[in-house]
Amino acid sequence: MSKTNRGRFFEDYQLGEVLHHAVPRTVGEGERALYHALYPARHALYSADSFAQSCGLKSSPLDDMIAFHIVFGKTVPDVSLNAVANLGYAQGRWLTPVWPGDTLRAESEVIGLKQNSNGKTGVVWVRTTGLNQHNEKVLEYVRWVMVRKGDLDAAAPQTTVPDLPDALTVNQLKVPEGLIFSDYDFAQAGEPHRWGDYELGEKIDHVDGVTVEEAEHMIATRLWQNTAKVHFDTSARPDGSRLIYGGHVISMARALSFNGLANAQMIVGLNGGAHANPCLSGDTIRAWTEVLDKAETAAPGVGAIRLRLVATKGGAPFELRDEEGKYRPEVLLDLDYWALMPR
Amino acid sequence: MSKTNRGRFFEDYQLGEVLHHAVPRTVGEGERALYHALYPARHALYSADSFAQSCGLKSSPLDDMIAFHIVFGKTVPDVSLNAVANLGYAQGRWLTPVWPGDTLRAESEVIGLKQNSNGKTGVVWVRTTGLNQHNEKVLEYVRWVMVRKGDLDAAAPQTTVPDLPDALTVNQLKVPEGLIFSDYDFAQAGEPHRWGDYELGEKIDHVDGVTVEEAEHMIATRLWQNTAKVHFDTSARPDGSRLIYGGHVISMARALSFNGLANAQMIVGLNGGAHANPCLSGDTIRAWTEVLDKAETAAPGVGAIRLRLVATKGGAPFELRDEEGKYRPEVLLDLDYWALMPR
Amino acid sequence: MSKTNRGRFFEDYQLGEVLHHAVPRTVGEGERALYHALYPARHALYSADSFAQSCGLKSSPLDDMIAFHIVFGKTVPDVSLNAVANLGYAQGRWLTPVWPGDTLRAESEVIGLKQNSNGKTGVVWVRTTGLNQHNEKVLEYVRWVMVRKGDLDAAAPQTTVPDLPDALTVNQLKVPEGLIFSDYDFAQAGEPHRWGDYELGEKIDHVDGVTVEEAEHMIATRLWQNTAKVHFDTSARPDGSRLIYGGHVISMARALSFNGLANAQMIVGLNGGAHANPCLSGDTIRAWTEVLDKAETAAPGVGAIRLRLVATKGGAPFELRDEEGKYRPEVLLDLDYWALMPR
Repeated sequence: MSKTNRGRFFEDYQLGEVLHHAVPRTVGEGERALYHALYPARHALYSADSFAQSCGLKSSPLDDMIAFHIVFGKTVPDVSLNAVANLGYAQGRWLTPVWPGDTLRAESEVIGLKQNSNGKTGVVWVRTTGLNQHNEKVLEYVRWVMVRKGDLDAAAPQTTVPDLPDALTVNQLKVPEGLIFSDYDFAQAGEPHRWGDYELGEKIDHVDGVTVEEAEHMIATRLWQNTAKVHFDTSARPDGSRLIYGGHVISMARALSFNGLANAQMIVGLNGGAHANPCLSGDTIRAWTEVLDKAETAAPGVGAIRLRLVATKGGAPFELRDEEGKYRPEVLLDLDYWALMPR
Repeated sequence: MSKTNRGRFFEDYQLGEVLHHAVPRTVGEGERALYHALYPARHALYSADSFAQSCGLKSSPLDDMIAFHIVFGKTVPDVSLNAVANLGYAQGRWLTPVWPGDTLRAESEVIGLKQNSNGKTGVVWVRTTGLNQHNEKVLEYVRWVMVRKGDLDAAAPQTTVPDLPDALTVNQLKVPEGLIFSDYDFAQAGEPHRWGDYELGEKIDHVDGVTVEEAEHMIATRLWQNTAKVHFDTSARPDGSRLIYGGHVISMARALSFNGLANAQMIVGLNGGAHANPCLSGDTIRAWTEVLDKAETAAPGVGAIRLRLVATKGGAPFELRDEEGKYRPEVLLDLDYWALMPR
Repeated sequence: MSKTNRGRFFEDYQLGEVLHHAVPRTVGEGERALYHALYPARHALYSADSFAQSCGLKSSPLDDMIAFHIVFGKTVPDVSLNAVANLGYAQGRWLTPVWPGDTLRAESEVIGLKQNSNGKTGVVWVRTTGLNQHNEKVLEYVRWVMVRKGDLDAAAPQTTVPDLPDALTVNQLKVPEGLIFSDYDFAQAGEPHRWGDYELGEKIDHVDGVTVEEAEHMIATRLWQNTAKVHFDTSARPDGSRLIYGGHVISMARALSFNGLANAQMIVGLNGGAHANPCLSGDTIRAWTEVLDKAETAAPGVGAIRLRLVATKGGAPFELRDEEGKYRPEVLLDLDYWALMPR
C-alpha cells in the first residue's frame, strides 16, 4: 500500500540473505573538507598529498572514518530503521583506501539471528561490505543490532550466533599497498613518538574537549546519508532531544586523539565497540586511550598498535566502569581498534 | 552618495529591461558535498557517477536545486532586496544539467509591472535565466514579487500582467540530452516504484521529519550567495527571528520526498509555488506529495510526473487549506513541479 | 612523561629560532565551497573562474583569507596554545595566490622577545611564512602574542623588540603575476565604483549584519585546523562561553564589506590589526571601512587602496574609540590592510 520504507522487522531477515543497500555515493574533496570542518582532524596522511606521497601513497586518501560512515549510512534503511539498540561491532577491516572520485556502495549478509526471550525483539548479526567502483572491498565489519518484531506471531528463526573473536590478529590486518613509514617526517606529522615509544597498558589523556552542537551532528549525519529519525526529528524521542549518531562521537574522539597519537595514522582494524551512553547537543566530548597490544607488520617501518579509545562527556580520564562493572554514566564510547604507526 | 546598494524600488523597473545580475559563480564538488550535508538528499542520480552513467549521463550532475538556488541568489540584490513578499513562480524549466566546474551567471527580464492600489507598493514580474560558461541556458523561471516604492510620488507604470499558464505542458519539458531509464537499477535507486505505479490523485506521506537550526539555514543561504538581510540579521525583523530562506524549505522537502519518490530523479519543470507561512529555526519540517499529472516523453524509459510537494511544520499530512480556502498555518510550502521517472 | 603537547611557554622561545609547524594541508574546492557557506563572500575574482581569467589569472584562486587562516592555524600549537593575548599583526604580505590542489605548510622565526615586568608573562614576536608545495612563499606576516611563563624562575631573555613600520609601502606589495584590471567587468563584479572613486578619509557603512552561531564558528575554526581550546570547549573559560576565533570576525567583516567595496578584489597587505573585544555566539557582526591611503601599481589598471576595516557588534557606524582613546566596547576588530582595485 504505502510507497515509503517502513524498514525491516526481525522476522524479515533470513540467515544467509544478502542485502544490497541502495544509493551508491561518489566521494571527493568536498567530503574531505567537511570532515576537517566537523572534526578537529589533523592526522597528516589525511591532510596533505605531500605527506601521503612521502609514505608511498599516490595522494592523500579520504579519512578512514569517512569510508566507515558512508558504508554504515547505506545500511541504516535496511538494518537499523527499527533497531532498538546498536549492540556491537566486530571483525572490522579497512581493505583499500578511498580516493577522491571513488564511488562507494554497500551490501550486508545476515550471519546470525536470535529471537529474544520476550518474543518482541531479536538480534540480527550482519557482515557489511563496502565496495568501490572497481568492485574492490574497501571495508568490512560485523555489526549486530536489536530489532523489533513487526508481527509478534511470526515464528522465531533457528538461533544462530556467529563466532566472533574478541580482536583481529595482526595477520588479518591489511596494510595499504605501497605504504612505507621508513622516511616518515615526524616534525611534519606533529609529534615525535614512534611505535616503540608506546607501552602496553599505557594510558593517554588527550586533554582537549569539544562541546557539540545540533547543527554540527545533523550536518555530519546527513553527509553520511544516515537517515535514522532519532538524529534529526525532535518528535522522535519522548524527551524531545536529538540523539547524536554514535559515529559522530567516534570521529570526534579519534580526531581529539591526535594530541598524543598524531602518528597513529591509519585505522586498519575495528575489534569492537560500544556506544555506552547517549550523546546530546551541549555535551563536551573528551577522549583517552589505552594501549592494548602491539605487533610488527611486513611493510617497511610500519608497526601496528591496538588501542582502546574512550570518549566521555565528563568525569576524570581513565575511569571506564563502576563497581558493578557497568559503564560509568559519563562514558560515551569504548572503541577497540588497530592503527598503523611508524616504528 | 553612498557606495552601498540600497536595492531597487518599484519605480526603478522598466518593462522589457534586462538586469544582468552580478557575481558569476563556479560550482563543483564542494557545493555538492555541502548539499548532501545540509539536506537528506539521496536521489541516486545526484549521488553517484556510476548511477548517472547507467542513465546515459557523463557523470553525476549537481542537484537541480543547486542550480535554482545559485541563480535565485544572484537575482536577490536586483530584484528582492526591497521585496515585501515573494508572490509566486511559474514556467520554470531546467534546460541543461550543471556539472562540477561549470560557472553560472544570471539575468532577468522585466515582463510585468502593476502598481498596487495603495500606491505604496507594486508587483514586478521577471523572467530569470541562468546560463553556464558556454552561454547555454541552464534554467529559466518567472518570479513575481511585491516591491516597495522608494518615491511614493513616482508615476505608476502602465499595468502589464503577463499571461502565465498554470502548468508547463509535457512538450515544454526538456529531457537532458542522452538520458535513458531503460537500464535503470531500481535496487540501487532505493525503491521499486516506477512511473506506472503512481496514480493521479495518489498522496504520499514522506514520513520523516527534520528539525532545523539557525546555523544550517544560514550556511545554506550564504552558499547560494543570497544576501537578503532577514535570513541573517536578528535585528532585521521586529520579533528578532531570522526568516528561513524559502528555498531551504524546498530543498528540505524535496530531499525528504525520497522516501516514497526515490525514483523521481530529475526536476525538469516548476509550474508554481507558494511559501505559505514563514519557517523558523526549531521548526520540524515534514513533507507530503500529491500526484497531479503524468505524461510520457520521447526518451527511452523516461516518464514525466507532475507532483504537488507540500512542506509542513506540524499538523496531519494531506491537510492544505482551511475552510476559507487559506493555507493552514502549519503549511510552509506548496510546490508544483514536473520530475522525470523510469517508466 | 606525557605524550600530549602542553604548548610552549615564554622561556621555551629562543631569538632567531625557526619553528617548523606541523601538519601540511592540501586545500581545494571543498575549502572554497565552505568559505562561501560560512561567510557572505561575493568578491567575483574568488567566485568564478571566468571572472578570474578575465583578470589575467589561470583560474579563481582560493580566498586570500583561506591562506591566512590555514597558515595561522598551523602556528597555534607552537605559538599561541599558552597565549594570554594575541597582541598584533604587522608586515603581512600575500605573495602568491593559492590554487585548488595546493599544499600549504608554515614556519615561524622568533624575531623578538620581551619579558613583562610582572615576571609571569612575556611577549613573543614571530615572523610566520606560509609556503606551497613548490616552496614558494604564499604569505608572510609578523604576529606578537603575550605568553605565560611555565617556570617563573627561568631567566629573562635579553629584550629584543623588532622595528615594525606602521604600514607596508606600496613597493612592498606583491601584485599577483599576470593580474590586469584593464578589461575589468564592473557589472559582473557587482558595483561601478573604481579606485578613483574612493577618497582619502572616506567612510563606508557596509550596512548588512550577520548574527553568528556556535556551530558556524567552530566549523570554520576546525577547517583551519586551529586547535585553541577557548574556541571549542565550554569548560575552558570561567563564564562557559566559547570565544570566537578572531579570524572568523575578519572573514565575516571582509565579506560584509563587499557592499561598498565589491571591487577591492584582492588582499595583498596586512598593515596591522587588533581584536578589540571578544566576539561570542549571538552577536550580530556589522562592518564599516575608512579609506586610509591609495597608490598606483605597475600592473595594468591595478590600483592599491589602504583600508581600515572595523567590525562591531552594535553601536553606530564610524565610532571606534571612547574619550579615553580606548576601543569602544562594541568594537570587535580594527584591521588595516591593502587591497587591489581596478583604476
